[in-house]
Amino acid sequence: MGIENYLHEHIPLSASMGVRVKVATPERVELWLPLAPNVNHQRTVFGGSAAAAATLAAWTLLQLRLDRLKADDAQLVVQRSATEYKWPITADFEAVCTFDDEATWASFERALARRGRARLTMKARLIQEAREVVTFAGDFVALRDR
Amino acid sequence: MGIENYLHEHIPLSASMGVRVKVATPERVELWLPLAPNVNHQRTVFGGSAAAAATLAAWTLLQLRLDRLKADDAQLVVQRSATEYKWPITADFEAVCTFDDEATWASFERALARRGRARLTMKARLIQEAREVVTFAGDFVALRDR
Repeated sequence: MGIENYLHEHIPLSASMGVRVKVATPERVELWLPLAPNVNHQRTVFGGSAAAAATLAAWTLLQLRLDRLKADDAQLVVQRSATEYKWPITADFEAVCTFDDEATWASFERALARRGRARLTMKARLIQEAREVVTFAGDFVALRDR
Repeated sequence: MGIENYLHEHIPLSASMGVRVKVATPERVELWLPLAPNVNHQRTVFGGSAAAAATLAAWTLLQLRLDRLKADDAQLVVQRSATEYKWPITADFEAVCTFDDEATWASFERALARRGRARLTMKARLIQEAREVVTFAGDFVALRDR
């Protein structure tokens, strides 16, 4: 099953938000979202939709990394997140999460293997027409039965 | 038009999330949300849904206060928000925002009247079966043409 279908089936809000998966690798996730289902009364994107899109991009990248590690049985939860809304979003937009800090990832892997628990801060951003409109940082924890 | 209909029509994600408005006064907003449309792959509430629900409760309370002030032409935007996920949400839940700090509100009113711009931090929380499961703080700005 493709990642887009997986998201729509298991996180139904992603289908309501019209999320399309453009890129989904352990280094980069790009989601595309239409304005219409995410709009607010001012015809810009509802802040809650923006936060949800960023959370989803970050979660998807981490889940892909856990899958690659054959740790897809690990429970992945967000502990806290901070979202900064720099510009109103007035059209379709993208949610992008990148991660290529392999040293930090190696520490995460070791902690998960040794303690069954590991924490990582993931950053994501929303882009409208090449402009960074929202930034997001989320602390995620993976928990695994050993 | 009732507030619930207003939300569903103007912020369509609120309809997708199944938001019901239980209380909507300038002192207290309580929204009720069902688990099903907000669920994730672990059968708990998707973090993005939780952040969106809290944002919506805080936004609704502020909008009710602007309406009472006859400042419903003011543009109300969220600038930043922080969400803390204390417990997984495993069932239907509520998003609650209360505000009764009338001294702070008076300052906000004065700033909006004098400068056409005022900022306020709003707190909200999510409740499942009397337990506080998520806390949220958002900085909102109202902007008004004078």
